[in-house]
Amino acid sequence: MKKILRVLLRSFIMTCVIVILALPVQGVEKDGGQKDQNRGMSSVSRQTKRCLGCHHNSTPGIVEDWYASLHSRTTPYMALQKEKLARRMSAESVNENLSGNIVGCYECHSLNAEHHKDSFNHFGQKINVVVSPKDCATCHPVEVNEYVPSKKGYAVSNLDNNPVFSLLVKTIISKKEIQQGKVMQRDVSETTKMETCYGCHGTEVKVSGTKKITSGPLNIIVPELQNWPNQGVGRINPDGSRGSCSSCHPRHSFSIEIARKPYTCAQCHLEPDVPAWNVYKESKHGNIYNSKYHDWDFDSVPWMVGKHFKAPTCASCHNSLLTTPKGKVIQPRTHDFGARLWVRIFGLIYSHPQPLSGETSIIKNKDGLPLPADFNGNLARDYLIDTKQQQERRDDMISICIRCHSTNWVQNHFAKLDATTEETDKMVLSATLLLTNAWNTKRADNTNPFDETIEHYWIAQWLFYANSIRYSSAMTGAPDYATFKNGWWEMTKNLTMMSDWLDLHQ
Amino acid sequence: MKKILRVLLRSFIMTCVIVILALPVQGVEKDGGQKDQNRGMSSVSRQTKRCLGCHHNSTPGIVEDWYASLHSRTTPYMALQKEKLARRMSAESVNENLSGNIVGCYECHSLNAEHHKDSFNHFGQKINVVVSPKDCATCHPVEVNEYVPSKKGYAVSNLDNNPVFSLLVKTIISKKEIQQGKVMQRDVSETTKMETCYGCHGTEVKVSGTKKITSGPLNIIVPELQNWPNQGVGRINPDGSRGSCSSCHPRHSFSIEIARKPYTCAQCHLEPDVPAWNVYKESKHGNIYNSKYHDWDFDSVPWMVGKHFKAPTCASCHNSLLTTPKGKVIQPRTHDFGARLWVRIFGLIYSHPQPLSGETSIIKNKDGLPLPADFNGNLARDYLIDTKQQQERRDDMISICIRCHSTNWVQNHFAKLDATTEETDKMVLSATLLLTNAWNTKRADNTNPFDETIEHYWIAQWLFYANSIRYSSAMTGAPDYATFKNGWWEMTKNLTMMSDWLDLHQ
Amino acid sequence: MKKILRVLLRSFIMTCVIVILALPVQGVEKDGGQKDQNRGMSSVSRQTKRCLGCHHNSTPGIVEDWYASLHSRTTPYMALQKEKLARRMSAESVNENLSGNIVGCYECHSLNAEHHKDSFNHFGQKINVVVSPKDCATCHPVEVNEYVPSKKGYAVSNLDNNPVFSLLVKTIISKKEIQQGKVMQRDVSETTKMETCYGCHGTEVKVSGTKKITSGPLNIIVPELQNWPNQGVGRINPDGSRGSCSSCHPRHSFSIEIARKPYTCAQCHLEPDVPAWNVYKESKHGNIYNSKYHDWDFDSVPWMVGKHFKAPTCASCHNSLLTTPKGKVIQPRTHDFGARLWVRIFGLIYSHPQPLSGETSIIKNKDGLPLPADFNGNLARDYLIDTKQQQERRDDMISICIRCHSTNWVQNHFAKLDATTEETDKMVLSATLLLTNAWNTKRADNTNPFDETIEHYWIAQWLFYANSIRYSSAMTGAPDYATFKNGWWEMTKNLTMMSDWLDLHQ
Repeated sequence: MKKILRVLLRSFIMTCVIVILALPVQGVEKDGGQKDQNRGMSSVSRQTKRCLGCHHNSTPGIVEDWYASLHSRTTPYMALQKEKLARRMSAESVNENLSGNIVGCYECHSLNAEHHKDSFNHFGQKINVVVSPKDCATCHPVEVNEYVPSKKGYAVSNLDNNPVFSLLVKTIISKKEIQQGKVMQRDVSETTKMETCYGCHGTEVKVSGTKKITSGPLNIIVPELQNWPNQGVGRINPDGSRGSCSSCHPRHSFSIEIARKPYTCAQCHLEPDVPAWNVYKESKHGNIYNSKYHDWDFDSVPWMVGKHFKAPTCASCHNSLLTTPKGKVIQPRTHDFGARLWVRIFGLIYSHPQPLSGETSIIKNKDGLPLPADFNGNLARDYLIDTKQQQERRDDMISICIRCHSTNWVQNHFAKLDATTEETDKMVLSATLLLTNAWNTKRADNTNPFDETIEHYWIAQWLFYANSIRYSSAMTGAPDYATFKNGWWEMTKNLTMMSDWLDLHQ
Repeated sequence: MKKILRVLLRSFIMTCVIVILALPVQGVEKDGGQKDQNRGMSSVSRQTKRCLGCHHNSTPGIVEDWYASLHSRTTPYMALQKEKLARRMSAESVNENLSGNIVGCYECHSLNAEHHKDSFNHFGQKINVVVSPKDCATCHPVEVNEYVPSKKGYAVSNLDNNPVFSLLVKTIISKKEIQQGKVMQRDVSETTKMETCYGCHGTEVKVSGTKKITSGPLNIIVPELQNWPNQGVGRINPDGSRGSCSSCHPRHSFSIEIARKPYTCAQCHLEPDVPAWNVYKESKHGNIYNSKYHDWDFDSVPWMVGKHFKAPTCASCHNSLLTTPKGKVIQPRTHDFGARLWVRIFGLIYSHPQPLSGETSIIKNKDGLPLPADFNGNLARDYLIDTKQQQERRDDMISICIRCHSTNWVQNHFAKLDATTEETDKMVLSATLLLTNAWNTKRADNTNPFDETIEHYWIAQWLFYANSIRYSSAMTGAPDYATFKNGWWEMTKNLTMMSDWLDLHQ
Repeated sequence: MKKILRVLLRSFIMTCVIVILALPVQGVEKDGGQKDQNRGMSSVSRQTKRCLGCHHNSTPGIVEDWYASLHSRTTPYMALQKEKLARRMSAESVNENLSGNIVGCYECHSLNAEHHKDSFNHFGQKINVVVSPKDCATCHPVEVNEYVPSKKGYAVSNLDNNPVFSLLVKTIISKKEIQQGKVMQRDVSETTKMETCYGCHGTEVKVSGTKKITSGPLNIIVPELQNWPNQGVGRINPDGSRGSCSSCHPRHSFSIEIARKPYTCAQCHLEPDVPAWNVYKESKHGNIYNSKYHDWDFDSVPWMVGKHFKAPTCASCHNSLLTTPKGKVIQPRTHDFGARLWVRIFGLIYSHPQPLSGETSIIKNKDGLPLPADFNGNLARDYLIDTKQQQERRDDMISICIRCHSTNWVQNHFAKLDATTEETDKMVLSATLLLTNAWNTKRADNTNPFDETIEHYWIAQWLFYANSIRYSSAMTGAPDYATFKNGWWEMTKNLTMMSDWLDLHQ
């Protein structure tokens, strides 16, 4: 009885809410709306006002975050008035329905609804749950067009379509059971995929139907999403697009400050396999950043070397639009995070020139595998940038370094990196030779090259230790990291342990 | 001769000091003291003024810290004038001797002296060295009454009265000597106990007599404390009480800001066994916190989601009084840090529902051991909260999450955590089966299940790796941590090493 | 043809630049220069103005950093007007050419050119690339004279002239090749030396000739430096001096704030071998620092306990000039970072009293090796400070601790450290006995004590785990670090693994 009454009450309240929400909001029209759009006056759209009405109560965290954003006080029209280098919008114009309103809930969550399988009717408005790069491209097309074809944009298929990587993934994250005293690999769960490799690489977000959720007195029908939540860099969205802008510009403040601070990159670029952050924070740059960042300006566009910051963060070297304090461009902005890189120092058995395409699963080495080098380090050169392109990218990077360092300093630094990259590759080759020995003498089995103890040592040699040393070299810092933490000590010990393992398994 | 003169001089100075301190301080009475207490005027008690007189010179660090505190400018009377939600004092009234004075040295260090074995006569005033939760309960009884019966309140006896844990502790931290080529366990020193397990869990602080210390020209007789200093969460104090408020509200500023910042929890909740902080700082929440915390308000009571902070810290989810920006209560404050938790994901072989009592040494599994599950993961359900209580606590947590996330997002998140908890338990079971095999075939000896190499592998499986993955799942972050750092890579490698060990020890 | 034209154009531009730069700069003379020096008016020298003219464009990062420094707005004359305790300059006077100008590019980069092999003619001015401690001593002689004879000042020769350390270095960082299935040590590259041990210890910076670099339209001849860049603490400079002030006062802001923040020390004093920072940040001091440092003053001289900071950083205890808030000196400034230390708890097999000389390669133990103890822990007492000196230094440290802690607390703390130091030494001795057993029974070979698996276990026992526990004890924090991270768990497991290894290698 009580339950019936509650259901009736809910239905009544919901009806009232829908009716109220569906009424034209007179007051709102007055102080904003369509009329003012071309004059660039800040105004909140009628639809966004409706969103805010409920969501300020139900999800104040989201709404307050948005209030703190530039979006909440800027219309596209206003954004376009800024002079070229100061502009944060790369579209030259936007649809006139959008241009006069501040960028609110509805402006983003309603775009391209026809492509969004996660679109649903929410109190009379068509809303997409997930805002995708394709939607963001309405105002930020250059960024999206740089990002999508890059390695980050292909982060999912670069794992899924590469049988070697897929086997490594499966070997590591599959459930293991013991059968007759032996460790047996079972399946990989979707939840574990989401929480491990695909947590950074991205999931494929699918709509599997609808579900009823309860919010206060209301029952609401919403799309049921699978492999969600996720903000992996190559996420496949319900509109078919790839990528997730909120990987680096999180949530509803879309903060350039957050994206420029190293903690953003440090969500994924971490010890032991990609220790960019670990090395950075132990470097001289990291020391100066940690000691002084509160005095710097992480919001200004363009970002001026020396004036806005005095030591680089990840973004300074890898993607931001940088100028001198007098406004001379040092490097243009890029959202292809490999664009200024000439060599790839992590993730693969051997270092190698950056791949030509962000889609790395198309590479074929001489063994026919989608890897940039074969087992002994010979490069699949057809799929990698050439020496000239390497030099151009290195020059781009040098153009940044020399704003704070002498040319001699910078040249020596990069010569050092070259030597270290080569030397660590040779240390990996030594491990590979020991492993080959194990395979050739049947002490280990190369059917799966990733699932035995001596293979684990070998993996650690390239995936953790050689990498770590190269990062330390590249950022001219973290000597202790390159020595005792995850560097030469481990690389040397590892070879001795492999040798020991071979002795014990005659 | 010189020495005698120095002793005489000291005696003389000390006598003068005592006489001066013992005189009634007329001036002080005038501008404060008893008379004004009920008018709530801020006043420093006569006794505290005496403390400050010397201690501003001898221990300026303490005094300056206190000057920066709210205690130094608030009387209990003033504190009680605040409206309910803004109140930091949970007592409805305090003794009139206290209510009109600001909360100074003497107000805290003189309470309940009759119970304090560390009470001593200090220049004519009776002073306790250690201020205990029982003393803090004078103004903050609700907090103390929540804390003391919780797992933190029982942190010492939960180790000491549990023979399994005690054996683990002893095996790890006992001195080891080599006798005829074998590693022999010896005793555990009190100092090492204090610096390891009991550094976080707490020591039993005992008064073993008095000692003479020298401060400038003065010789002072003070109580001699054993197992001190310590701020472990379950510390047993010289008045017999349990707990240490300064574990989280350190020293003399009693700062709510410090307690709300994650570094406080990060003193103990750390890699490899309880990697809460390690996971948090690599998560999206951690990224936003690190990038923006300087713009947030860590001092306001109540703590408003979205307004005062835009990403949670440990305290947001686990214990703070949270409201919406409009002041609607989301969750009440609690100092039982398990109160919003339904599952326990660390410290034991298998995950399990939270224990019913904070005193976990009373648990008995079907093998008669004080553990929430037996060796194969079967739960000791009589001692654990039931499904209904689990759901209620999970709903409490969800009530916080949904202030920034959609219901669908939150539901998916917790479903993911459920699946991961179960999956990691199974990965532990696989390790347990390999260990059982070792025991059954006499390749290892289960007299002490913690002291052989294969047993160390097994411990790492549950105490480090399964935990780490669960934490990563629970905080929806740190994919790299769950993959390569202390997660699936290690869990998989560990099983292979156990299997290898068994092969080599036929 | 095009190339010839470009060369001609460059030559022409360069000639113009040189001529312009060589002209007397009339305007500058007017508003500064020699005349005003004794009146202490802030003025930029004619030569520095020339530097700034180009370098504000070519290296704005350097110039902006310098603008943010005290050097850019202070002349030595002004610096000398400050009262004694507030002075940042330890020279009582400087040459009158320097005293009236603010401390600009030329003032530092032109000093003692006759000793600088890296001196070169740069557009008509004689410039040294590297500013050395000998140059800094012009204004800061006391600091340099303390630093140079300290262990930091000898950091290079303490490695190079110690055959035991040199062998350890070579064993770890040499290239390894596989020959007939065996791991063979090859040579050590200069680049790897720079990036590992000598990254912190310092390189020997040598001038190997000159090179032509291109900056915009200009070709410039500069000295070619080897083993550069480097800011290791014991760097050997092109003028023959030892040390690098920019190790801790980085780049051109020469910030005392950066030097006082723990990130500076954390460039080198890191897990696993010197985990000072790792322990600090998990300690109570670290928690308070991390939570509150933004409210503190890291720039004032002298540094007042309680007023400017409320929890110590590395600098507080180890080298800063500290006073009470009333200005009473607690400890004078020292740039010998061992000056307040009585025991050495890292880097060697056993803990030991601090060495008498910063040049530790002169030590001889009873086996004739340059180590402070022999293989079984017997001290080479002739080269170490005696008990009296130990007590004096400990008293110096205590004089700091007691500003925030009671005498009883502090005494107990140091008694705990003594006990832990002794206990961890015994745990190392246990490992040594197992290793000796391996050597005596020919299961391992002591020709090189650092290159076999069981030797790696032994190294980890003292170089990583015993150290970590002592650091945790010394900073009264990080119980988890001393237990499970790099402490007792690892130390105990290590002994078991050594024992296992011996069993398997009969």
